[in-house]
Amino acid sequence: MPSRRIRIKISYDGTTFFGWQVQPDLPTVQSELERVVSGIEGAPVQVAGSGRTDAGVHALAQVAAFSIQNPIPCENLRRAMNRLLPHTIRVFDVEEADPAFHPRFDATGKHYQYRIWRDEICPPFDRPFLHHHPYPLDESAMEAAAPLFEGEHDFRAFAAADEKDGLGKSKIRNVFRSRLRREGAVLLFDVEGSGFLKHMVRNLMGTLVEVGKGNLSRADMATLMTPPYGKCGASVPAKGLFLISVHYGEARLRS
Amino acid sequence: MPSRRIRIKISYDGTTFFGWQVQPDLPTVQSELERVVSGIEGAPVQVAGSGRTDAGVHALAQVAAFSIQNPIPCENLRRAMNRLLPHTIRVFDVEEADPAFHPRFDATGKHYQYRIWRDEICPPFDRPFLHHHPYPLDESAMEAAAPLFEGEHDFRAFAAADEKDGLGKSKIRNVFRSRLRREGAVLLFDVEGSGFLKHMVRNLMGTLVEVGKGNLSRADMATLMTPPYGKCGASVPAKGLFLISVHYGEARLRS
Repeated sequence: MPSRRIRIKISYDGTTFFGWQVQPDLPTVQSELERVVSGIEGAPVQVAGSGRTDAGVHALAQVAAFSIQNPIPCENLRRAMNRLLPHTIRVFDVEEADPAFHPRFDATGKHYQYRIWRDEICPPFDRPFLHHHPYPLDESAMEAAAPLFEGEHDFRAFAAADEKDGLGKSKIRNVFRSRLRREGAVLLFDVEGSGFLKHMVRNLMGTLVEVGKGNLSRADMATLMTPPYGKCGASVPAKGLFLISVHYGEARLRS
Repeated sequence: MPSRRIRIKISYDGTTFFGWQVQPDLPTVQSELERVVSGIEGAPVQVAGSGRTDAGVHALAQVAAFSIQNPIPCENLRRAMNRLLPHTIRVFDVEEADPAFHPRFDATGKHYQYRIWRDEICPPFDRPFLHHHPYPLDESAMEAAAPLFEGEHDFRAFAAADEKDGLGKSKIRNVFRSRLRREGAVLLFDVEGSGFLKHMVRNLMGTLVEVGKGNLSRADMATLMTPPYGKCGASVPAKGLFLISVHYGEARLRS
């Protein structure tokens, strides 16, 4: 039977998962998906994602793909997956894809959002999905600083510690949009780019928080993206971060 | 030192609590509040609520009160309580009250809201705060039926099983407002009244669901509020229920 390539879109509450990537004996989003799809297929199936999300990071619309031979219609597959998955992961779209489709290599952009609750009292209902920072911040300075990340830069200063020394791997990324705005009691940081280094979004946000505290100037920020780089602001907690969407342009980067 | 009567307003996520009322060795909202206020006072303090909420029921603005001698200003008391309470309970208002104030006996009305998610896929982020019912319901019939609960009725058919045989206790309650409406994918049932029997709101909602399924007519509903009463529709899960507010009129019912 010819193999089908299936593309899915999923939401997840990252609170109880040890991130996206399969890890032995730990609940991860990828391992839950592989368990369920393998069960439906009756054979081991690997599920590829558009990229890893860290432990505690949430997703509104992560994209993943897998190959199966089972002729089950897409709509029935969606229902079956949602019946078998924990309620913290929901599949809201299933469709046939090009046999060569790869959610990571074909992605042309990603949109992340970081959410900070600014009031003294954080509503108990939203708390797993916000970083609570009720202390003074110069939000105007932060808003003015956020677009400085836009453009093609070497973001090595914003990579995770265990990625910083990776030899030969480019740390250059293209940030299309980097904007901060207030919505009620929430400070929202939206960042879109060609791709992101491990921990990069949380480090960008942490750096803007340092700007808000007056510990970093715009000039300091610029030096972080030019040699000899240096050290970015402290990271912020995973639970305020959402993968909002993954974009696929007309042209595949690999096909 | 003269005793102060303190009135507080609190929000809580009921998911992890065994309801409002103190129970030995189980986490409850009342026991958390009493632990924290007693710690601040340095002596045992009892906290009275406007009424019990069942295990799993949430509150946007529950009202409670207690008496202390500690002269701590209200704002500092609020901060201290929020520092010591779990993040699933937040105190957002603290004020001095009349020494005779009792949150239960002085209450003149309460507003509850029940939330049903109607689409096939329930967002993982909202799931602890919604009842998921994606199956067909005649929502127009439900909307038309909801106001039948308004007025003064004997609601014994809607009381919890363990309350049904309580001798001598009136089951008559005055419902000021009982309305159902759609907001996006959520079906909202708002009910306000002088007071509610144990499980009454969930039983009213369950009865409206039976109307939506075509199992109960408007005529059947009317018979539930007249002798010989009978059996209401099956209850709905606690997690969709919110205590929205508690009202205190000009005149105290007991003072």
